[in-house]
Amino acid sequence: MEKIRIGIVGYGNIGRGVELAIARNEDMELKAVFTRREPSLVKIHTEGVAVKHMDDMMAMKDEIDVMVLCGGSATDLPEIGPKLAANFNTIDSFDTHARIPEYFKNMDKAAKEGGKLGIISVGWDPGMFSLNRLYAEAILPQGSTYTFWGKGVSQGHSDAIRRVEGVKNGIQYTVPIEAAVERVRSGSDPKLTTREKHLRECYVVLEEGADRQAVEKAIKTMPNYFDEYDTTVTFITEEELKAQHGKMPHGGFAIRSGETGEDGNKHIIEYSLKLDSNPEFTASVLICYARAAYRLAKAGQSGARTVFDIAPALLSIKTPEELRAGLL
Amino acid sequence: MEKIRIGIVGYGNIGRGVELAIARNEDMELKAVFTRREPSLVKIHTEGVAVKHMDDMMAMKDEIDVMVLCGGSATDLPEIGPKLAANFNTIDSFDTHARIPEYFKNMDKAAKEGGKLGIISVGWDPGMFSLNRLYAEAILPQGSTYTFWGKGVSQGHSDAIRRVEGVKNGIQYTVPIEAAVERVRSGSDPKLTTREKHLRECYVVLEEGADRQAVEKAIKTMPNYFDEYDTTVTFITEEELKAQHGKMPHGGFAIRSGETGEDGNKHIIEYSLKLDSNPEFTASVLICYARAAYRLAKAGQSGARTVFDIAPALLSIKTPEELRAGLL
Repeated sequence: MEKIRIGIVGYGNIGRGVELAIARNEDMELKAVFTRREPSLVKIHTEGVAVKHMDDMMAMKDEIDVMVLCGGSATDLPEIGPKLAANFNTIDSFDTHARIPEYFKNMDKAAKEGGKLGIISVGWDPGMFSLNRLYAEAILPQGSTYTFWGKGVSQGHSDAIRRVEGVKNGIQYTVPIEAAVERVRSGSDPKLTTREKHLRECYVVLEEGADRQAVEKAIKTMPNYFDEYDTTVTFITEEELKAQHGKMPHGGFAIRSGETGEDGNKHIIEYSLKLDSNPEFTASVLICYARAAYRLAKAGQSGARTVFDIAPALLSIKTPEELRAGLL
Repeated sequence: MEKIRIGIVGYGNIGRGVELAIARNEDMELKAVFTRREPSLVKIHTEGVAVKHMDDMMAMKDEIDVMVLCGGSATDLPEIGPKLAANFNTIDSFDTHARIPEYFKNMDKAAKEGGKLGIISVGWDPGMFSLNRLYAEAILPQGSTYTFWGKGVSQGHSDAIRRVEGVKNGIQYTVPIEAAVERVRSGSDPKLTTREKHLRECYVVLEEGADRQAVEKAIKTMPNYFDEYDTTVTFITEEELKAQHGKMPHGGFAIRSGETGEDGNKHIIEYSLKLDSNPEFTASVLICYARAAYRLAKAGQSGARTVFDIAPALLSIKTPEELRAGLL
């Protein structure tokens, strides 16, 4: 079998997850990892694979079928995405919802000019949740869509906690409120406030001599991050944090409640994820879309795409005949 | 807005559902209903729409963009499907799993020769469940997929009950066993027997003077239908049957449990449906795939397709820009 040659750009949690996901797909091989750091200091899992500096990517243009971009959406991807898309087929997990139209436009232009194919905003939200919102809304045009996240670690909120004075370390879990999920599942089509949908649970390690009450208040009243939620703050030791909060679980629910016919028959479509490792799952989604990008590019297509544009069969290692016989 | 002109072939539960679904999609209009019965005896909901005999379809070749075939899979679709696919773009819900490869081949040949596009096996299983099995397996190549059906009415099993001597009327519900669903959701990857996955609940109206015990035994031991399941038989009156069992609810769960990485991190992907009306929901899925067939045919494509081949964006009334801005 001719293998799909993958390059990884950025070796953080997602980059490592992509490396692990490649090992679980027999039609793929990792060709190189590119980093902004000094390459000799970056240790990867896979034996015999080169770690190179990002400045040295162009020399491998003919050896890599798809580049998986594992940088951040805030500053990294908007800058390097279009540059890479002009020279490589790409997959990324760009997730700044408000800036997706602008990012798509820039990626589309660059990829078209370079004759390459780039799939943006791949993962589970945006990604699998987006797909399920689209499918459910197309089937049930009259209805409401609800998205709940968690229970899971929010990196942004954990960072926000750690910036509070007196906080040595901390982690934040977003928790969907079960009563709200049940109201949605009942088909009652409720209007839910931000506070009614999610709780925020914070586990905080204090600096020596820090004021507990002041820290708790600073967190709970923090605008944009916590003030619109019911938030709990639990103080723990650094050892407890390491022992009990070292994983990155996540998940959630995308639910559509809609009706059909003249009698208003109700229907509930629910897609849910329960993930032990958010970065490994996200990476697994990225990797099957890399397969689709490879196939579309081989068929002569170019430009930017999203998960909405990709026929599901392109994601699978199986042939169309196998899919029809075995999964339909 | 130029509307997509739909024809319905066969006016049973699904055909009526398609008619109702068209009314809920503003870019569609019902052009004609075709029946094998005497057209004047078939009363439809929509005013001003013609009911015609199936022999008179060809005269409307240029007035219909997509034909939705609402016949049965056992004998109806294998015969009329290819004939229609040679002359019209088609959607059907062919659901005899074992014969899908053969049906696909016949539809593909006919549609290609006629320069038309036909999407087969559309609905929720096969259909949305198939899609979710494919997506989940592509993301998590190492794992197990489970499908549970119900609680819902099985037409085939209800028919089987009604053929038992002494039975005047009856209905059968397929019920997923909650304990089995919970074992799957826990990620324990259980091996489940047929008996462990589903119960069968029968509600039976007896003929006058019929032998209760003989009827109960005949149902519970019926090969293929009931002998491999735990089955309950409850005797009710014709009035109770009408009052409490007149709807056609259904639903179910497609669940994949899989792992990633080197530490065997577990992930659960679950897609579930809870439907008040099985035929109306199935019809709603058919109708959004009719939109996709229309668009693909307009773009010059022909031949047979399944849900696996259809990019999700083609199902939505929204533009790609609207989808990226609003749903991604």
